[in-house]
Amino acid sequence: MTGSSKGSSASATVMRAALLRGFGAPLEVAEVTVEAPRAGEVLVAVAASGVCGSDLKAIDGKSPVVSHLPCVLGHESAGVVEQVGPGVTAVKPGDHVIVAMNGPCGRCRNCARGNAHLCSGRSRMSAIMGLMGDGTTRLSAGDETVRPYIGIGSFAEKVVVGEAMCVKVAKDVPLDLLALTACGVVTGVGAVLNTARVEPGSSVLVVGAGGVGLNVIQGAVLAGATTIIAADIAPAKLELAERFGATHTVLSDDLPKQVGDIVRGGADYAFDVTGIAEVLAKAFAATQPGGTTVMVGSPAAGKNLEIPPGLLFGSRRLMGTQGGDATPARDLPLLVDLYRRGRLDLEGLVSERVPLDAVNDAVAHVRSGAVARSVIVFD
Amino acid sequence: MTGSSKGSSASATVMRAALLRGFGAPLEVAEVTVEAPRAGEVLVAVAASGVCGSDLKAIDGKSPVVSHLPCVLGHESAGVVEQVGPGVTAVKPGDHVIVAMNGPCGRCRNCARGNAHLCSGRSRMSAIMGLMGDGTTRLSAGDETVRPYIGIGSFAEKVVVGEAMCVKVAKDVPLDLLALTACGVVTGVGAVLNTARVEPGSSVLVVGAGGVGLNVIQGAVLAGATTIIAADIAPAKLELAERFGATHTVLSDDLPKQVGDIVRGGADYAFDVTGIAEVLAKAFAATQPGGTTVMVGSPAAGKNLEIPPGLLFGSRRLMGTQGGDATPARDLPLLVDLYRRGRLDLEGLVSERVPLDAVNDAVAHVRSGAVARSVIVFD
Repeated sequence: MTGSSKGSSASATVMRAALLRGFGAPLEVAEVTVEAPRAGEVLVAVAASGVCGSDLKAIDGKSPVVSHLPCVLGHESAGVVEQVGPGVTAVKPGDHVIVAMNGPCGRCRNCARGNAHLCSGRSRMSAIMGLMGDGTTRLSAGDETVRPYIGIGSFAEKVVVGEAMCVKVAKDVPLDLLALTACGVVTGVGAVLNTARVEPGSSVLVVGAGGVGLNVIQGAVLAGATTIIAADIAPAKLELAERFGATHTVLSDDLPKQVGDIVRGGADYAFDVTGIAEVLAKAFAATQPGGTTVMVGSPAAGKNLEIPPGLLFGSRRLMGTQGGDATPARDLPLLVDLYRRGRLDLEGLVSERVPLDAVNDAVAHVRSGAVARSVIVFD
Repeated sequence: MTGSSKGSSASATVMRAALLRGFGAPLEVAEVTVEAPRAGEVLVAVAASGVCGSDLKAIDGKSPVVSHLPCVLGHESAGVVEQVGPGVTAVKPGDHVIVAMNGPCGRCRNCARGNAHLCSGRSRMSAIMGLMGDGTTRLSAGDETVRPYIGIGSFAEKVVVGEAMCVKVAKDVPLDLLALTACGVVTGVGAVLNTARVEPGSSVLVVGAGGVGLNVIQGAVLAGATTIIAADIAPAKLELAERFGATHTVLSDDLPKQVGDIVRGGADYAFDVTGIAEVLAKAFAATQPGGTTVMVGSPAAGKNLEIPPGLLFGSRRLMGTQGGDATPARDLPLLVDLYRRGRLDLEGLVSERVPLDAVNDAVAHVRSGAVARSVIVFD
């Protein structure tokens, strides 16, 4: 096998990538060496990568999985397969792929039980920490080893990922739209369809109508929910929420009361997409007995969620979700299919397309909450 | 219709019942007038009534549904139908019945959706507050109106309950054992089968091996769980837990570590039967990613449950259950059937049988934690 020594192999190439070199510092677009894919790995030329709140958390030093710097952020991407390592059979050069956040091993106890989203195989556990299954990385900058965020690192022209993270898709759907499915769309829609399993006729509260929240709303429409209440503190986001299918909008103030005024007794389902523990607790309190609340997305560390046990006693449920509890090979093609049939809006999620050099502007826009999704596009 | 005026009707009878006249005071066994059943109601001669932790909470003034005194406590009972009101077709005098804690209306939105355990029909909502569907009660003591606890009040020779709360059973199973199914057994087994839906091969943690916890253990065995860890602070209870099917026992200390030593990464399911918020939080922390924690039973008011959102992010789930989320007409006959087939231990749950006059002793025994279940038996 070739290409295993840093930057010196004939099979290594140099690309441009945005590096996080210090927490809180701007990302630095620089040349990064990427090695050829090894056994079971795929080199993908990134076409587009969305900027997500989780990237911002990593920049701020608040991500538990980003300890080693420099790191290439970005985890919501799609592209074209450029090269495959030995043994790869699922994709070939030229294929269009969505780069999934989770490449299930298919063999661990969780995969065997049908819970691929909980895969605890070595390759996935390594990927979460920014390493390949063998504990190394394919990226370097000079003498420095570079880690790709959760095994992806798509603020870069190329990524090397495990074969199971590549979901092949037809070539007629624009790659910049496909990129969004990998995180924001599958997290929102998956939280509804996989985690909560919302039924037709349900009432659904969605708190936070940003890039992920809009997809929770779309998911609720797909599930047949008939009352979809969007809550946010920004009126502009509520307008967008209505475009995505919200039947009611409320400027967040006293959620249990506001929701109770619309649905007597509270909502059947609540989704908190703010990542704020106090807001999650209010969303929980806005559900009726037997209701289900889902914490969508990763929370800010430090602050505990406080729940009155009396509310829990009313057969209420509280669930976390990681990326919509998705099985990529099942869920990502479904999302593409729904988009093709006009039942999923992807264009409406894209607020701006920017080149890699403008990555810090895109980060700033996401941070300000001014956009649904900023997408970095590559030539 | 006769018997609608307090105590004066020819169809009213006098019985002995244990009255709660003041929070914290001993129960007072006294004569109570019980009116004849009205339309849709059934008069049951109580054969046996278990003493449950919820009764103690009511005595202590900590039950949100017991505000009006005097009140007859007791809610885990079985007996023989003595008289039926107009329109009753499900049972007739002489039938043996378990008195279920929930009489689903069958018509409300929750019942129609298959969630009979969440019935929000008027009769059930009234029963919870100790009233019949028409807002009155059939009990009085002299000039005083007496309320039956959650519409039952089985620390008494007779109860009048809605038809839907009577589950007819064959006459070959002792009524004192059947009484236990109404609350303790269905709550524990139902939490496993209905609320958590434990699958075969699962690992299960049960914290608190008292009268309900033992039934969680039995439920886990029924569900095919292969690792069943019982935790308690009383060694004697752990011995009992082993008799009911626990494969491992731990004296509660540092639950996440103790469980992790037995099941790498934590348990698939955890059931807290202590009602203590801090213990529930530890049980939650002792589950693995994707794990489910159920709060069994009603919690002590006041103290909030505190959960680190980071744990929730790992697709963990937290659920409340009310009485095992049971549909009585489905679940209670199932429990009787399992008992008949030797797959459910009911005898082993009975620590003592006492007459009504010894009700305060039975309460004291349950409070001390010295018994699994004290059962009040009537001639």
